[in-house]
Amino acid sequence: MKNIQSDLNEQLLQQDFVYETEQLQLEQCQLIAQNFVELENGIAILSDLKNNKSYIYSGKIADELNIFQNRNQLEIESIWEDELFNILNPDDVLQKHILELQFFQFIKTVAFDKRKDFCIICKLRLLSNSRSLIHKMFYFSDVHHKNVELALCLYHFDFLPSSDYTGMIINTAEGSIIQQTEVENSNFLSAREKEILKMIQSGKKSKEIADVLFISINTVNRHRQNILEKMRVSNTTEACTLATRLKWI
Amino acid sequence: MKNIQSDLNEQLLQQDFVYETEQLQLEQCQLIAQNFVELENGIAILSDLKNNKSYIYSGKIADELNIFQNRNQLEIESIWEDELFNILNPDDVLQKHILELQFFQFIKTVAFDKRKDFCIICKLRLLSNSRSLIHKMFYFSDVHHKNVELALCLYHFDFLPSSDYTGMIINTAEGSIIQQTEVENSNFLSAREKEILKMIQSGKKSKEIADVLFISINTVNRHRQNILEKMRVSNTTEACTLATRLKWI
Repeated sequence: MKNIQSDLNEQLLQQDFVYETEQLQLEQCQLIAQNFVELENGIAILSDLKNNKSYIYSGKIADELNIFQNRNQLEIESIWEDELFNILNPDDVLQKHILELQFFQFIKTVAFDKRKDFCIICKLRLLSNSRSLIHKMFYFSDVHHKNVELALCLYHFDFLPSSDYTGMIINTAEGSIIQQTEVENSNFLSAREKEILKMIQSGKKSKEIADVLFISINTVNRHRQNILEKMRVSNTTEACTLATRLKWI
Repeated sequence: MKNIQSDLNEQLLQQDFVYETEQLQLEQCQLIAQNFVELENGIAILSDLKNNKSYIYSGKIADELNIFQNRNQLEIESIWEDELFNILNPDDVLQKHILELQFFQFIKTVAFDKRKDFCIICKLRLLSNSRSLIHKMFYFSDVHHKNVELALCLYHFDFLPSSDYTGMIINTAEGSIIQQTEVENSNFLSAREKEILKMIQSGKKSKEIADVLFISINTVNRHRQNILEKMRVSNTTEACTLATRLKWI
């Protein structure tokens, strides 16, 4: 009786902690996003990677840009804020995505308690005129599993139109630049990963891919998993859509 | 009976609103400051102009700069964050103060509901090395009296060391620069205001100043009031201290 009770207690408490922590982190990030928009009139997109959805917080800058006018639509069923991307220079959006993917790879090499010191910053030119936005992005990891669960993108107008720079990963605590990149798209996925992604896109199953490439199905599945992790997407359909858009395949 | 009740009701509700609104605005700004520091590792100083005190929120950048190490001291009895100013280029701090004062004059000309669209941004060089901080500042007005009651200063590292610009007042909603200035100190206070401030500093009372300048005591008092408003300080002692530091007198 005692054991069952203590077991149950432990299970409940643990379950409770997991729930609380995740919920707390989401709520904290939502608050941070709201406060940023409140103060700086910018746009904040909080993406929940696990559930493939995003929360949109749009300040007055959205009116100026004529996007996110549907005020009721605070949530979208995607981690991609296409309505904003569509008014930006496609090359810059591409660089932004590559930078985010690199950042995703990088952050997993950083100890959990140091992760919040890093973010990326890049400049995004508007299609309609010569003005630009500044984009900052932060990743938030799950305290238990160390997975990256949330991504927070902040956008505001750039007031230094003369300054020209490519995106970078920075350490906000030390004020240092970790990585400044304008990466060849082709280097991000390996040749084999791209080959497999193309086959997935054409409708092939893992077994068929394994047969064509003379590799085991386990190897195919490991490649699939690596692709999802590298591209921080939740399924191969999304990976295909993004890779096509990024002209990787 | 009905009238007294409704009067009392109105009075109570109004009193209640005033308290709530002020308290709410302070709490909201404190939350914004906390969230900024939490996310960006920066330093946020929220100054309560009415009560001449400041709340300090210092992120990891403070450790890097070796300031605000006394973690218990979250409040200071001043609206000036001297511990930070002391490690910055004095010319930049001077320009920052002038910009803040100009911004203060400017914001009072803006309709209450539009005020939150404006902020100032400037660059502050560190004394110790070639790095710089970016400073953003926002004013918050009292909803009832339209006075500027709170000032929020945000500091973080600058990641674009090549860009060089003087401070400016910006409209964050439209992304436009309102005023870009490197103002002569001497233009801020009028010759007469400086003359009177010097006399106040030397210990003269309004009556004595009026006699020396052959003007009425009312005129002296109007000048005193204008000086306080222009410099956004609460008393002439502070005005003298600041004006001396800014080498205006």
